[in-house]
Amino acid sequence: MKEIEEIIVELKKFRNERDWEQFHNPKDLALAVSIEAGELLELFLWKSAVDANKEKVKEELADIFSFAFLLADKYGFDIKQIILDKIKVNSEKYPVNKSKGTAKKYDEL
Amino acid sequence: MKEIEEIIVELKKFRNERDWEQFHNPKDLALAVSIEAGELLELFLWKSAVDANKEKVKEELADIFSFAFLLADKYGFDIKQIILDKIKVNSEKYPVNKSKGTAKKYDEL
Amino acid sequence: MKEIEEIIVELKKFRNERDWEQFHNPKDLALAVSIEAGELLELFLWKSAVDANKEKVKEELADIFSFAFLLADKYGFDIKQIILDKIKVNSEKYPVNKSKGTAKKYDEL
Amino acid sequence: MKEIEEIIVELKKFRNERDWEQFHNPKDLALAVSIEAGELLELFLWKSAVDANKEKVKEELADIFSFAFLLADKYGFDIKQIILDKIKVNSEKYPVNKSKGTAKKYDEL
Repeated sequence: MKEIEEIIVELKKFRNERDWEQFHNPKDLALAVSIEAGELLELFLWKSAVDANKEKVKEELADIFSFAFLLADKYGFDIKQIILDKIKVNSEKYPVNKSKGTAKKYDEL
Repeated sequence: MKEIEEIIVELKKFRNERDWEQFHNPKDLALAVSIEAGELLELFLWKSAVDANKEKVKEELADIFSFAFLLADKYGFDIKQIILDKIKVNSEKYPVNKSKGTAKKYDEL
Repeated sequence: MKEIEEIIVELKKFRNERDWEQFHNPKDLALAVSIEAGELLELFLWKSAVDANKEKVKEELADIFSFAFLLADKYGFDIKQIILDKIKVNSEKYPVNKSKGTAKKYDEL
Repeated sequence: MKEIEEIIVELKKFRNERDWEQFHNPKDLALAVSIEAGELLELFLWKSAVDANKEKVKEELADIFSFAFLLADKYGFDIKQIILDKIKVNSEKYPVNKSKGTAKKYDEL
């Protein structure tokens, strides 16, 4: 079994033991990802990047990944594939010669 | 090479070709995760879960994963491990006998 | 009529002309606030505060206020009053002598 | 003094007593708005709109307003005016005859 599949198996085991799939519709899973992303952000509030608490970043990132993996699983997405597909799309939106060294959005290049 | 490592290699290749590592401090990566989570959320706004556009969900999830993988890589986290560790923590916060079938938060159980 | 009431009257006029109240349940309004907050955040991504586009900040802030006003109106909240109440709560969580000059959260003071 | 000005006076009094203006650059204030929006969202997670805790919605909305008012103040925006301006922009993006009764985005009308 591949690494991501192994992770998803563990997440679903935890979920199913608690009979929580009934709550995990895609809309609420998207809310959960967003809420956890807000908690991650809070670790950086009023401070510079180096001052964030690494242990807490670890926990919040784990939460984001967990809900994102469960949401991807709901839709049956192959996570590696959808990322490679998106890199391809972004390679066209951000051609190296135009985007190198600049943080501008594609519609401002 | 493991699956997640392969994904991160591709993400860093895309980033380095554009000389974008200079912008990718942990704080801004956390902002990026949160912004993309907001874009995912928008796909569900004013509608029920089944009406969200699956192709767009795929793209926004890919963006969230991409920045989350890059942030985890910045800190040198082993993604599978941090998720397994968080499942363990959550198993204690949400014991099966108390949390089964309820969506209550641990501090309300 | 007071200033905030005048604003809400205009927001509801715009909404009712389009027959949009049917979509504006509190949960989706909360999503809307969060989505707009993500769009505001994007204006600061990969850059320092001074480099954000002021005109765009103005528009995104207006969107956040609009949905937040409509949500408060749904619940019949008096906005000035709920803010004054929250300042009172925060004054107890953050006593001046402990919190002066530090950005620590109340549970770390 | 107008209502919104009175609110901002109170917010700045609370802030200045704690010497917190040093932390309140526009970027971090935008983070704060987004973090609080995530906390508001959490009150609706895994449940329907009517089941959210009204008292907590009140507190989270107050937090969002507080940081949004402080951010608007940083830029010197007239809040009523920026909302009226945005309603005008949106009236053109969403003409009544095209948008009535539909939740579609302007680029899908």
